[in-house]
Amino acid sequence: MTAPLVPEVHTSDVALAIDIGGTKLAAGLVDGSGRLEVSRQVPTSAEDGEGLFAVLAGLVDEVRDEGRRRSLADPTVCGVGSGGPMTWGGAAVSPVNIPQWRGFPLRDRLADRVGLPTFVDNDAKALALAEGWQGAARGVSGFVGMVVSTGVGGGIVLDGRLLDGVDGNAGHIGHVVVEPDGHRCGCGGRGCLEAEASGTAIAARTGAPPAEASIEVREHTGRLVGRAVASVGALLDLRLAVVAGSVALGFGEVFFAAAQREIDERARLEFVRDLRIVPAELGAEAPLVGAAAVGWRGLVGG
Amino acid sequence: MTAPLVPEVHTSDVALAIDIGGTKLAAGLVDGSGRLEVSRQVPTSAEDGEGLFAVLAGLVDEVRDEGRRRSLADPTVCGVGSGGPMTWGGAAVSPVNIPQWRGFPLRDRLADRVGLPTFVDNDAKALALAEGWQGAARGVSGFVGMVVSTGVGGGIVLDGRLLDGVDGNAGHIGHVVVEPDGHRCGCGGRGCLEAEASGTAIAARTGAPPAEASIEVREHTGRLVGRAVASVGALLDLRLAVVAGSVALGFGEVFFAAAQREIDERARLEFVRDLRIVPAELGAEAPLVGAAAVGWRGLVGG
Repeated sequence: MTAPLVPEVHTSDVALAIDIGGTKLAAGLVDGSGRLEVSRQVPTSAEDGEGLFAVLAGLVDEVRDEGRRRSLADPTVCGVGSGGPMTWGGAAVSPVNIPQWRGFPLRDRLADRVGLPTFVDNDAKALALAEGWQGAARGVSGFVGMVVSTGVGGGIVLDGRLLDGVDGNAGHIGHVVVEPDGHRCGCGGRGCLEAEASGTAIAARTGAPPAEASIEVREHTGRLVGRAVASVGALLDLRLAVVAGSVALGFGEVFFAAAQREIDERARLEFVRDLRIVPAELGAEAPLVGAAAVGWRGLVGG
Repeated sequence: MTAPLVPEVHTSDVALAIDIGGTKLAAGLVDGSGRLEVSRQVPTSAEDGEGLFAVLAGLVDEVRDEGRRRSLADPTVCGVGSGGPMTWGGAAVSPVNIPQWRGFPLRDRLADRVGLPTFVDNDAKALALAEGWQGAARGVSGFVGMVVSTGVGGGIVLDGRLLDGVDGNAGHIGHVVVEPDGHRCGCGGRGCLEAEASGTAIAARTGAPPAEASIEVREHTGRLVGRAVASVGALLDLRLAVVAGSVALGFGEVFFAAAQREIDERARLEFVRDLRIVPAELGAEAPLVGAAAVGWRGLVGG
């Protein structure tokens, strides 16, 4: 019952960590204390799926070479965070923003190439693991980790465990309904948080990138994120939401203050009155630290 | 990872099961296969908290006497489902509809009186355990069990485990926001499912008991329940909602069909397209079967 969120391993143990995003591929080496020792990245650009895998394989080789030069231990596990959707455990991934990969057998191809036990999970679940292991939710047994960026994703830790769900998709806070008569969502629904508060939705509505959004738009976005967090906090008896992603972090204090106000107005049951929303702490390192956590969790269990 | 939702015990093992409600107190004996062998109930009426506990103690004695007459094994655990709120594990219960008990130390008083290891949990979580053990969600690793009655409560099973939350309150689907500008909720928020779809809310709005509600009211209530289920299904990667409670079951097919339509319109991500909402199966036996499950879960773990 009280097993740690990310299994405890020796500090000198090393995980090969990989982050698969629509803009860039990143790989690194993370030690058992969550420290990112080596990292490299390349743009996600290749004509086809095999070409992209070759780019990734080359990146991994570079990272492992650098690890050897620096006398790090050989990695004992490979952990991967990837954009979804995917089938259970990343057996087949189809990242929305990587059209070259549709049903790509990422886990098996990587395991074969790197010669290590390999574990793949959704990148927002990896972020939740990272923030719970080393970031703003360190030691917290129940919280939601969110990414408010091009889309809106999330991962939930409850009772000290990362929630998986039937097919590994638990955490999709982007599809909690916040405006029942709101905008049509990419999923086919209406008024989902992602249809109202994602960078894509904001750009479509304002005709400009989120970085140029007005104070009103920043506040409105914060309120809707706060509304979803209030619902999820009551539903799951949580006290904390940790938010990453270029839209949320770019909107900054105006966004977080508006989200907290909405939470304070709506989360009124005694057990959620202290529900707080805070920025993620790990910044640019979160995806690789989270990927390493996916690896340790897969290898040791948790 | 694949431990059963309710621990497997010998069929002949017996749990003393207790259900604490605002209208009645019930006690029974449930065997290890989930069969309710003996049950008794009395109205929840006593001038003060000690008087009410004495009534409960008498009821328990009757039930145990009857078990002896029928040569059942002595119970090895006591499990309790109670209206909330309560502190962790029922150390102090303050059921909304039992004003005689405010911070009443139910777990310790009962353990002392019955001489058995005693475990207390929220009645909606007990219902989810019951339906997952013996009812409509038997063998399902992820589902939400709901009670739509005077209030709206719930319990969530995910990854094969009942979710607890930081203070044991996970499952409060009644406080998911379904109408952002809707009615003021008893919790202090606005437009929570409970403020729109509970028997109390319906009676306040229509001026008549829910049993007399029009087809339009039944459909509207179903749609709002379906809306919350769609959000929760996407959030937690669920495929099933099992609904009990006098309002939902009394509204019947009109309610369930409207709820399913709303879910079909809103739950559009591939992994939730098969999300179904169905009536609970255990009927009047559910509270005591669920209370027994609370006991076994507490005794054996899970």
